[in-house]
Amino acid sequence: MTRGRFITLEGGEGAGKSTQIRLLADALAACGKTVVPTREPGGSPGAEDIRGLLVSGETGRWSPVTEALLHTAARRDHLERTVWPALEAGHWVVCDRFFDSTMAYQGYGLGLGRELVATLQEAALGGFRPDLTLILDLPVEDGLARAAARRGGEDRYERMDIAFHHRLRAGFLDIAARDPERCVVIDAAHPVEAVQAAILDCVTRRLGVS
Amino acid sequence: MTRGRFITLEGGEGAGKSTQIRLLADALAACGKTVVPTREPGGSPGAEDIRGLLVSGETGRWSPVTEALLHTAARRDHLERTVWPALEAGHWVVCDRFFDSTMAYQGYGLGLGRELVATLQEAALGGFRPDLTLILDLPVEDGLARAAARRGGEDRYERMDIAFHHRLRAGFLDIAARDPERCVVIDAAHPVEAVQAAILDCVTRRLGVS
Repeated sequence: MTRGRFITLEGGEGAGKSTQIRLLADALAACGKTVVPTREPGGSPGAEDIRGLLVSGETGRWSPVTEALLHTAARRDHLERTVWPALEAGHWVVCDRFFDSTMAYQGYGLGLGRELVATLQEAALGGFRPDLTLILDLPVEDGLARAAARRGGEDRYERMDIAFHHRLRAGFLDIAARDPERCVVIDAAHPVEAVQAAILDCVTRRLGVS
Repeated sequence: MTRGRFITLEGGEGAGKSTQIRLLADALAACGKTVVPTREPGGSPGAEDIRGLLVSGETGRWSPVTEALLHTAARRDHLERTVWPALEAGHWVVCDRFFDSTMAYQGYGLGLGRELVATLQEAALGGFRPDLTLILDLPVEDGLARAAARRGGEDRYERMDIAFHHRLRAGFLDIAARDPERCVVIDAAHPVEAVQAAILDCVTRRLGVS
């Protein structure tokens, strides 16, 4: 049994990750892969319980350190219960957000810095990394406008100030620049179909889907 | 304003911590101290929410790593929202369980080892330490019998096997042996009044209450 592949989609609010995850999962399934679409925080019963604490309530409900710890706890549960067993079974796992979001949101956006987030990540995950990370990039104002149109109860991060969202975007771009072997920045300002085509092209070139 | 003191009570199930916390808080109050009795996991609204995830459900609900991360998240929230502000205000904080419980339960009892737990602790707390830690020690069987008599919904740890509880007790004693400046082992097999007297004597000698 060949180990499956682990692809993560990252980006700020309103970048179109959920839509693109769905389209990518469909395309991989059409190539004969067994696909497990999932998300963070969440993706396993325990991690979804932790998600409930993270995505609702006042913007100041948790400090950046507590928040990074909760995200890391949810991630460990998600990996143990969902991601690692699926990869072992040869499935392709496509995940809406992963550890780059903790680095971007808590490390860059909320000012925690790279070092503490990296230490927690290393402690909880060891050397585990995605095979490919697609960072959907969009001007901050466009993303927030899209997110507002969608609306929903899980808007704790959307409600943070505009400077936060600018730090977030810059953070994602810096993460991609530091790890070009793993990360590809996708221009998410284009129409859905064009973004979808760019993603598929990238997955095919990098991971050799046929 | 003199900074207050931070006293933690530790020990396995049924060691009598809650009773002794109450008695110690009363005694310190009688000496004119403003006392804040608190507990972990919990002690702040956010940490109590996390406690809800930790103390109920199946014994295998969380893996040891996830559990240590959740305890550390709850601890950070408790420190920021309750403990640190109280100490700054000059209050004496008396806490039912603190980081030694994470080391004993996850590090020793569940086999995670000292290093990972210490790394998480350092990342989340920096160099912060209790001024005094009282470890209530009791033969495992006696503690479990007392805990069973008390009964309640929060019995996820009590239901773990007897070997776990033996590792737990040995862990607490090892923690005390490694840090004699901070930790004192109290024989909790004696009657409540005798344990209370031993604790008060120790607090008076170490922290100079008058």
